[in-house]
Amino acid sequence: MGGVSTAERDRVPKQDRSRATRQRLLEAAVACLAEHGWAGSTVSAVAERAGVSRGAAQHHFPTREDLFTAAVEYVAEERSTATRALFPEGASGDRRAVVRALVDLYTGPLFRAALHLWVAASNEDQLRARVTELEARVGRETHRIAVELLGADESRPGTRETVQGFLDMARGLGLANLLTDDTARRERVVTQWAALLDQTLA
Amino acid sequence: MGGVSTAERDRVPKQDRSRATRQRLLEAAVACLAEHGWAGSTVSAVAERAGVSRGAAQHHFPTREDLFTAAVEYVAEERSTATRALFPEGASGDRRAVVRALVDLYTGPLFRAALHLWVAASNEDQLRARVTELEARVGRETHRIAVELLGADESRPGTRETVQGFLDMARGLGLANLLTDDTARRERVVTQWAALLDQTLA
Repeated sequence: MGGVSTAERDRVPKQDRSRATRQRLLEAAVACLAEHGWAGSTVSAVAERAGVSRGAAQHHFPTREDLFTAAVEYVAEERSTATRALFPEGASGDRRAVVRALVDLYTGPLFRAALHLWVAASNEDQLRARVTELEARVGRETHRIAVELLGADESRPGTRETVQGFLDMARGLGLANLLTDDTARRERVVTQWAALLDQTLA
Repeated sequence: MGGVSTAERDRVPKQDRSRATRQRLLEAAVACLAEHGWAGSTVSAVAERAGVSRGAAQHHFPTREDLFTAAVEYVAEERSTATRALFPEGASGDRRAVVRALVDLYTGPLFRAALHLWVAASNEDQLRARVTELEARVGRETHRIAVELLGADESRPGTRETVQGFLDMARGLGLANLLTDDTARRERVVTQWAALLDQTLA
């Protein structure tokens, strides 16, 4: 107990710097994957984008698979936390607004990056096991947040599947936004389904 | 009028052979794309798979883009026709069975092939315009069949968006089936959503 040694004082900022470097790499990795796809996404390209040396990048992420799976997981967690923070009142709030916010999780660079990773994993055995695990973890977490924010009572038969189907719909809407800006159509679909879900889950 | 000349008689079987070759190439192209992705899908690989010479393949499809976009469109049309044939009684039939059959359009090799093409197109300008057009045509046709077989009255406000959202869900279910066999979960989701749609569209 008592005072903090010089070594300890020095270690803390070093850890902070290391964490900041890691975060920059993770964010750059998602942006790179979203823009250039798996074929165009290497550790070197991400290091350059993040303004970090290739050596430092490899210290944090020894393999390309490590970097990109960690990146999608990190950004997914950030987005989930941000979505939850939008609704501090939780399930007692505006269910239609929650439906919109959940769909938004699937229409940005994160979804695009994840999609590139999934599709690459479907043809590369090395990546497949990692991404399957990642998808299961992120999927469970998103389902948990959806149930919580929608105020869905999963003890009622069918409710679990209603929420799952809605998240599948959100994923499909993300896919429909891949090649063209699908915003106008999506808004109409989400308005209609937010009403249907509100009624079904009430 | 009158008799058929020798030249005409000879032309017909030649056209038949040519059409059969074209169909074999299109089917092989979808299978190749579904299994190996865009990077592993070339005109040569498809020609070999179809048992056709590379020259004959290039006679039918001068470019890689021609072959694979034509393939996805052809197989999508075949599948749509087959789905419609399953319900000769049309909208007066079993709406829940129609929901299942429409979801099935998104869970086989065709969807997998189309997904590889979409994702490749999102990073390749040459492919993007072609695939965007293709997606719009196939999407419109699928929507038309869905409305018809579901007996959806699009003059009622919201009905169009109900059907669109359902097809987005089907697309999301296809994506969820990419890395792992999602059949068991999908069956439960489809059972629940078939009931919701039946109620909403009735």
